[in-house]
Amino acid sequence: MDIVIPLFPNFTALDAVGPYEVLSRLPGAVVTFAAATAEPVTTDTGALTLVPTARFDVIERCDILVVPGGPGTRMLMTDRSLIDWVRHIDAHTQWTTSVCTGSLVLGAAGLLTGLRATTHWAARDLLESLGAEYTEERVVIEGKIVTSAGVSSGIDMALTLAGLVAGTATAEAIQLSIEYDPQPPCESGSVSKAEPSTVELVRSLVAQRTADRVG
Amino acid sequence: MDIVIPLFPNFTALDAVGPYEVLSRLPGAVVTFAAATAEPVTTDTGALTLVPTARFDVIERCDILVVPGGPGTRMLMTDRSLIDWVRHIDAHTQWTTSVCTGSLVLGAAGLLTGLRATTHWAARDLLESLGAEYTEERVVIEGKIVTSAGVSSGIDMALTLAGLVAGTATAEAIQLSIEYDPQPPCESGSVSKAEPSTVELVRSLVAQRTADRVG
Repeated sequence: MDIVIPLFPNFTALDAVGPYEVLSRLPGAVVTFAAATAEPVTTDTGALTLVPTARFDVIERCDILVVPGGPGTRMLMTDRSLIDWVRHIDAHTQWTTSVCTGSLVLGAAGLLTGLRATTHWAARDLLESLGAEYTEERVVIEGKIVTSAGVSSGIDMALTLAGLVAGTATAEAIQLSIEYDPQPPCESGSVSKAEPSTVELVRSLVAQRTADRVG
Repeated sequence: MDIVIPLFPNFTALDAVGPYEVLSRLPGAVVTFAAATAEPVTTDTGALTLVPTARFDVIERCDILVVPGGPGTRMLMTDRSLIDWVRHIDAHTQWTTSVCTGSLVLGAAGLLTGLRATTHWAARDLLESLGAEYTEERVVIEGKIVTSAGVSSGIDMALTLAGLVAGTATAEAIQLSIEYDPQPPCESGSVSKAEPSTVELVRSLVAQRTADRVG
């Protein structure tokens, strides 16, 4: 089971590492972190840098593609070489997936046209501008395309995928191995649960964070 | 707010990246990934490598120390220079914390003696051998020492900490910004919820994974 996770400047670390932590535990899993060059890639905070293990141009195909999100996706949406690569890889995947605003990359590649899909809640308009029908569901499966909501949703998405590719018993074993028994200390994890004032605060913070990172 | 996350060979990525993703969103947060040398550090799967941003020996103090776990913690337990560094840093922290088997490092440094603490469920005996009283709670606060359960628990721990250092409104904003509204597709995230056969399967897999990595 070949799993490829593309890295790009200003991606969000947990978008990539959440699914990695789950999918790397699938029997026979080989995870590759791919990037445009062999140079280490820095996340949206500037504090964390990951080392890619392969360049995009040497990867011809994989079984599962996981596109993370982050402010950097705004630049990728017009990066024709990356978009073409995603489309090329998608042609042979078993599953093409995204976390958070990684869905904007799938959308820019034309893979979400007419499909129900999700993204970070603050990017719903942008996702819809790419031809997808935004839904608030946390994990959305449309054929082989799987999109998931903001940042932390990649863990739920990857466990769902683990169940689909290796069976429920394997997904349960992976869940227990990472002791994924979530107990958030507060209850504002979605727009429908958070106070309106929290939603507005975070919307402005996310906009600022994106503007800071993509200029 | 200076946050230091030590990296070491064969750590588990999500243990470090979960808390990083939360704590880096605290107002004024500066996150440093520290390591013994400036060389990139590879996780327990061999598939992911992170670049440290400072060496242990140049870090004198910080506000929050987050020690991740992983098979590599077994080697650290007898690494006197690392253990001495942890003890030295702890002397000035506001919070000294661990995720998963990172608690074994705190225990080896003598910081858990007589305290209630937690770790990955499969390491409870080892934790107790270090003088701590294991509890199944997901996040355990004893004074300024905060330990959390396996791998994914670091997200809950960090949100709890965010509430303590910056207030509930900030913790709620961070929770919404990472859309942390967990919806695991199965219900086997803890020993008490999983089937006994799943527990035994994962216990043997964890033991094998640890043996493979620490020889």
